[in-house]
Parts: sequence; structure tokens; C-alpha cells
Amino acid sequence: MSTAPDVVARLRAALGERVDLTPESLQSARADKSGHAASGAPIALVHAASVADVQETLRVATATGTPVVTRGAGTGLAGGANAGAGEIALSVRGMDRVLEIRPDDLLAVVEPGILNGDLNAALAEHGLWWAPDPASRAISTVGGNIATGAGGLLCAKYGVVRDAVLGVDLVLADGRLLHLGHRTVKGVTGLDLTSLVIGSEGTLGVIVGATLKLRRLVRGDVCTIAATFAGVRAAAEASAAVTASGAQPAIMELMDAASLAAVHALLALEPPAPGTAQLTIQTDGPVAAAEAERIAGILRTTGGTVALSHDREEGERLLAIRRSMHPAMEALGTALIEDVSVPRSALPAMFDEIARVERAHGLVIPTVAHAGDGNLHPNFIFDAEPGASGAVTVPAHIWDAADDLFRAALRLGGTLTGEHGVGVLKRRWLVDELGEDQWDLQRRIVRQFDPQGILNPGKVFAR
Amino acid sequence: MSTAPDVVARLRAALGERVDLTPESLQSARADKSGHAASGAPIALVHAASVADVQETLRVATATGTPVVTRGAGTGLAGGANAGAGEIALSVRGMDRVLEIRPDDLLAVVEPGILNGDLNAALAEHGLWWAPDPASRAISTVGGNIATGAGGLLCAKYGVVRDAVLGVDLVLADGRLLHLGHRTVKGVTGLDLTSLVIGSEGTLGVIVGATLKLRRLVRGDVCTIAATFAGVRAAAEASAAVTASGAQPAIMELMDAASLAAVHALLALEPPAPGTAQLTIQTDGPVAAAEAERIAGILRTTGGTVALSHDREEGERLLAIRRSMHPAMEALGTALIEDVSVPRSALPAMFDEIARVERAHGLVIPTVAHAGDGNLHPNFIFDAEPGASGAVTVPAHIWDAADDLFRAALRLGGTLTGEHGVGVLKRRWLVDELGEDQWDLQRRIVRQFDPQGILNPGKVFAR
Repeated sequence: MSTAPDVVARLRAALGERVDLTPESLQSARADKSGHAASGAPIALVHAASVADVQETLRVATATGTPVVTRGAGTGLAGGANAGAGEIALSVRGMDRVLEIRPDDLLAVVEPGILNGDLNAALAEHGLWWAPDPASRAISTVGGNIATGAGGLLCAKYGVVRDAVLGVDLVLADGRLLHLGHRTVKGVTGLDLTSLVIGSEGTLGVIVGATLKLRRLVRGDVCTIAATFAGVRAAAEASAAVTASGAQPAIMELMDAASLAAVHALLALEPPAPGTAQLTIQTDGPVAAAEAERIAGILRTTGGTVALSHDREEGERLLAIRRSMHPAMEALGTALIEDVSVPRSALPAMFDEIARVERAHGLVIPTVAHAGDGNLHPNFIFDAEPGASGAVTVPAHIWDAADDLFRAALRLGGTLTGEHGVGVLKRRWLVDELGEDQWDLQRRIVRQFDPQGILNPGKVFAR
Repeated sequence: MSTAPDVVARLRAALGERVDLTPESLQSARADKSGHAASGAPIALVHAASVADVQETLRVATATGTPVVTRGAGTGLAGGANAGAGEIALSVRGMDRVLEIRPDDLLAVVEPGILNGDLNAALAEHGLWWAPDPASRAISTVGGNIATGAGGLLCAKYGVVRDAVLGVDLVLADGRLLHLGHRTVKGVTGLDLTSLVIGSEGTLGVIVGATLKLRRLVRGDVCTIAATFAGVRAAAEASAAVTASGAQPAIMELMDAASLAAVHALLALEPPAPGTAQLTIQTDGPVAAAEAERIAGILRTTGGTVALSHDREEGERLLAIRRSMHPAMEALGTALIEDVSVPRSALPAMFDEIARVERAHGLVIPTVAHAGDGNLHPNFIFDAEPGASGAVTVPAHIWDAADDLFRAALRLGGTLTGEHGVGVLKRRWLVDELGEDQWDLQRRIVRQFDPQGILNPGKVFAR
């Protein structure tokens, strides 16, 4: 291991002014949007502007045995991009060009640092879009979306990131560049390393380019339904009835009573009746109106109070309630935003488990769910107690409750994380889901990409 | 390495009558539908009836250092399941149960040996289907579809196998059983090993179960268009015009003049005018009729002679011409069926390249294409010359022409194999597409699953 000044000197020699040592920059690289920060600050923040910059950085890292934490816009929710003491923070946010848009082949080639929202604005001019739509899409990068395997609101109908990436360019720990995947719709030449990189959270290499599978913008109406229910279980059962009916909403979001009340308070709206939960559903495409009528009928039958709009702008206003969830939580305290996913039929049972965990641990856990795909975000709110280094520490009783909740999700056939990733916050549960044999196999695969173990060490596979 | 009698004795002790040594069985395990066969016959054929049988087989293989070749229905087209001298052939064809169908969660859990067609018949009773539809679906297994990453006719609209598998159960070389993937729509816990197994052609482990992502049966009309063109380039340009228009056919198949003539001869239909190529297009779903009218207009504008049917049965009769391609080729001689895939916009250029290869090598190469996704099947026809061991040998001048064609596909941004896999027939070109660094990395990943190298050795990564 080289000393930090030696590493910095080598980086400076290779990358000049792209090496940022200002204390503010180094501090900002310690944290993501999870509210959690690494212990200590990284030794340097490299602002890569090209593939060659990334390669140079990794060559220095390999030569000196220095860990590298890759960052995009820092909007992660699991601490996966937090860089700490003794580490190089490598930002690819500045690599934000769209290199190619091919309407005829329905693909785009981009650099990793472009914001999802900016890409989609560019694509819209061609009548195209990239379907992955994390709630953070205005502020998160495409590279980060790929590295975490991000999801979003539209996944049940339009797929997840894995369904929307044809290839990635990856710089390995030693600086070599690999082109993984295809430009074609079909391709089975060798192992599917593109899929392996999706969701690998910076442990396999640095994503320096991506070939994205696009869709044409959906024509036709957009219809929006907001329906309130006397309780969260009734809302969950209604959403299951919608799915079971064969209707395919583009969006189906569920807010429990605590979430709905918090958003109403934030937006200074009239408080909902105690216990009220809400479903917000959007249909699109050529049969949007007919599907919306059918869904509204199901919701009324299952006890919902239903408002239906055929107007896009009115629909956005109805969805704004859901989109205000994150700021509403921030207004309540520090939030540990969890991300369990269960089979859709288990959604009512998972809400029962959350109620049980609330009672058992004496907590209120405001929860929203992408009800169309079974992905829930329970929010554990607490008063932050900054540690000696300034890092936020989650209190032990919160982790105990989260542990109880994770195990309930696994029992229901679910998974720890639907779209946020493992990062540092969920690494200690990873082996519970994967089992020892698979955990060990995955770690050995990582070592084929990164024999020295310098890529995002301590994340995902550390325990 | 143990002797063959020792291996057989151990297999018999562990598996009793599941160990098949009849010469006919061993002979049949040497070949798949490619027309090619391994040198020599395997030492035993194990008919696994359970996960435990597979595990026992692999424990014997590991203990004795004996290679194992996993087989389903033997319908592969790249020789990937051909078992030869000194190898154990392991058939999972008998593991053909549907373990679970969940209409509410849109998933099914199946054993690997079930035929794709049988599964879809069972699913149809629930209003469901599994979208992957290789042309062999009546005779190929779901496990084989996953192991090869099979495609089919519907991929542009309904996706490939990678889009339709949530999880696989995999027995490793040493007999350990891993459960990979999820039952949930979203899930990013650790590396996506499910995707890694899809298309791995028996090199990572034995697929003993799969959790499949289902769709609801598509409601509404099915409209079918058959359009003839004066030449293959005109047909290819017309198909590109359809794709570029934003229309989304469920099926869009192109047959060149030699293919069309061969099928007409087989079916005793009136011969088409010399040079005539054909597009067969199907639309489905709520806007099928309107899309079909729009597509028919595009085809007429681009010079096609168009027949449009709104009748499902008449549509099947029109498609029967395309579905008769494989028997029509078999009637001409032994066929080496190739499987290159190019970006859709490159389809006309790829047909130009095929014409160039025909001229340069003095061959006729009847070609069909899944024009909606850019996947072409050029058929190299030759008179088989059985070798000393009975294995069919592709003549050198055919390989020379195939080599020319593969390199043309790569130059056009394409890939060696869209849906058939690498097997033995394309292994020597794999490194040309992947590059040395990626080839080596992939092989090292394989070794993490199979340290001894006993799983399907000589396939995919041999050169």
C-alpha cells in the first residue's frame, strides 16, 4: 500500500487538474442521498472527462493498491457510492454526452454521467424514451441507474434496467477496457456479462459507456385514478385485484396512512381521515381510457372512493402527492428508506408484517409501494446522531426493526432490495438471502474482474 | 481420471436403472438437430428424474473427473448438447413437471425437461403464456431454451428468454444446488447470476428448475400480411421501413428467393416468379387491425404485392410457408443453419453481404430472417460426408464461406449468434467477437462454477 501523498502525486501526474483535493469536494464524496456517510474523507476526487481518464485513475489505483469508489450524481440510497478514508473517489458525472441516437434501431449510446432526465429530454425530440424511471430521474445518472439496477414507477408494464440495456463498456480494475454486449435485439455469444454488470454497484469495474434499448413514446391518452380506502390493507387488496384482473396499469402506487398524512401536511392540504390509504393509478396507450374505466370499477367494488381524470396535467397533479413522499419524510427526521420487494400477491401480507413490526418495535413506519410490481419502501424515521467523524449512525433499535422487516420479506418469497441496491446498508443481510454457497461464488466472480479487491471494497460483499 | 467401467459402476451404484447403456441411446446422445455429432459415443446416458439424480450424477463426475454433457430434447443447432467419447450424457428430459402456476404473480415454476409447447398448453388454460417461441417450440424444452438463450419469431415485440426468466435452480459441477434469482418483478440483491446462466450452454451447471415470468394471453384480433417483392433487397428495405414507421408487428419474417422457391417446391405450390422474396407480418393486440392497414400501406408504397387477412386460421396458413423452411432445407441436403444477428437498419446491407459471399464462394445460401429484430438464418447446404466415426463433417469450403459471412456480420455491428448459441460449431469465432481479454475473463468466470472443467468441455470456450 502506498501512502496517500504518493497516490495523489501519481494521480496529479497522470490527470493534472482533474484531481480535486478541495475539502468541500472530498466531504461531498463521502455521502449519498441515504443520509449516511463514510468514515473520513477520500484522499482525492477525480473528475473523469473521458474513458482515458478513468483508465489512468485505475492504473494508479492498481499500481498503488488504492481502493476506488465510482460516483455519478450521488443519489444512491444504500451508501454504495460513499467514499471514505484511504480511497479514491472517481466521478464520471462529467462524462455526460449522448454519442448516438438511432431511431431505426431503437438504441442510444451514451456516456455514464448523463442524467436520466436529460437523456429522456433528448430522446423525446426523436419520439423515443428510455423506460427506466427511478423517482430520482431528474437528478440521477444513467450510469448510476445501471450500476444499481434502478427501478421506478413504470416497471411492471415497461420493465427494469436489465430489460433496457444492450451493452456496457467497462473499465476493469487494472485499466483495461471491455466492450460487453451487443447492438442487436438478439445476441447469445458467450456469457451475458452485460447483465452481470447491471446492479453490480461498482464492484466489477467502472461503467464508461452504455448502449441502451429504447422504446417509442407511447401514443394515446393518459388516464389517472386516485382512490382512497379506509385502511392500507384494503388498498393493498384492491391493487392485487387490479393486477389479478389482467389490467396493466403503467403506474400503480400505494401510500399508507402515515405517508399520506405526512405529504398532506407538507403540501398544506386538508388532512385525510385517520387511517386513509391511497392508490394512484395511471393507464396509457391505445386502450388507456377503457382500462381506466375497468380499473375504476374494480376499485369501487373493493371499497374505494374513486376520482378518474382523462387530463394529463390533472393526472400529474394527482401524482404529485406520491412524488412528494421523499421531502415529506425528510421533514419528519432522518429516514432509512427501505426497499423490500415481494411477489405481488403477497403485498397485503407484507403490509400486515409492517404493522406487526411497528407494534413490536414501537415505531411508525410510513410506507409507499410500487403496488404494480410488489416493491415497498418502508421509511424508518429517526433523530440523527452524527458520530465523531460526522457520519450519520442508524440507532440500533432501528436496525433491529429493519432486520425484523427484511426477514419477513424473505419469508414471503421476497428480496432485500428491489431497486436501491445493497451498498453498505444491506450488506449484512446479503448472505441470508443468497445463502453461503452463492455468496461465496458471487464474491469469487467479483475477484475475476478485480483480483486485488480495490473496486468499492466494503460494499455489497463485505460482512 | 477413472476408467469408463469404474465411472459406470459408480453411476449404477448411485442411480440404478436411470443409467442407460444401450447402444441406441448412447448413439442418439451424440447428436442434436444441427446434423453434427460428437466423435464416439458417451460412456453412459443418465435419465435424471429428480434434482437428487442430477446431484448424484455430478458427484460421480467430480469424484472421477468425468465430463458431463447435459441434454434436453436434443433440438439444438450448434452441437452444444452433443456427448462424445469419455463423457457422461445427462438427460433432464424426464424432469418435465409444472410445479406451480401463479396467475396473480404472473409466474410459473417448472422443471427443465418440459417442452415449451406443452408448458404453453398448460398455461393457456389460465389465460397465460411464456413468450419465448423458438421455431422448435413443439419439440424443445424450456431448460434447453434457457441454456441456449433461445429466441424465436416474437422477440422484437415480446422479448427474448433473458426477459422472461426470474430465477433458475442450478446444480454445480460438485453437486451443490443453488437457487438463483427471485420470484419478484424487481430484485437487485447481489450479482444477476440468473442472467449469467441464460445462454451459458451447460458450462456453468445443470438447470434443474426455473421460475418463469409470464404474460397474459393477448386479447383482440390477429392480422396477417403476406407481401411479395421483386428481390430480397426490396423486401429487406420494406421491413426496415415498417420498423422505422413505429409500427410494432408481433412477427415479421423475411424469406429470400431461394428459401421461398424451396418451400414452394416442398409444399407442391406453384413456383414463385424467379427472384421473388416474401415478407410475412402479423399484428396482434387491441390495435392489430389499424396497425396491419398501416403496414400494408407501407409495403405497397415500397413495391410489395400485398395480401392481408383478418382471420387467424388464414393467417396460420400464410405463416405455414415460413414454418416449412427447415424441412425444405433438409430436402435439399445437409444444412449448416447459421444465425447471425445485425442491427435492424443493417438488414439490407447484410443481404448484400450474403449475395457477395454467394458469388465469391460459388454457393446458393437460402436465407430467412426474423426481420423485426435483425436475426438472419443463412443455410449452407452441402452433401454430407460421414467421417470414420459416423460424425458429419462440414466441408472446408463451406466453413470458408461461413467465416466470410460471420466477419461481415461483425463488421456491420452484429453478432455471431442471435439465438442458437456457440456450441461446437461457432467456438472458433467466439474470440473474434469478444476479444482476448473478455474471452479470458468469461472463461475464468466459468471456472468459478466448475473448477475441474468437467461441464460440457470443448463447447463454447474451447478453441
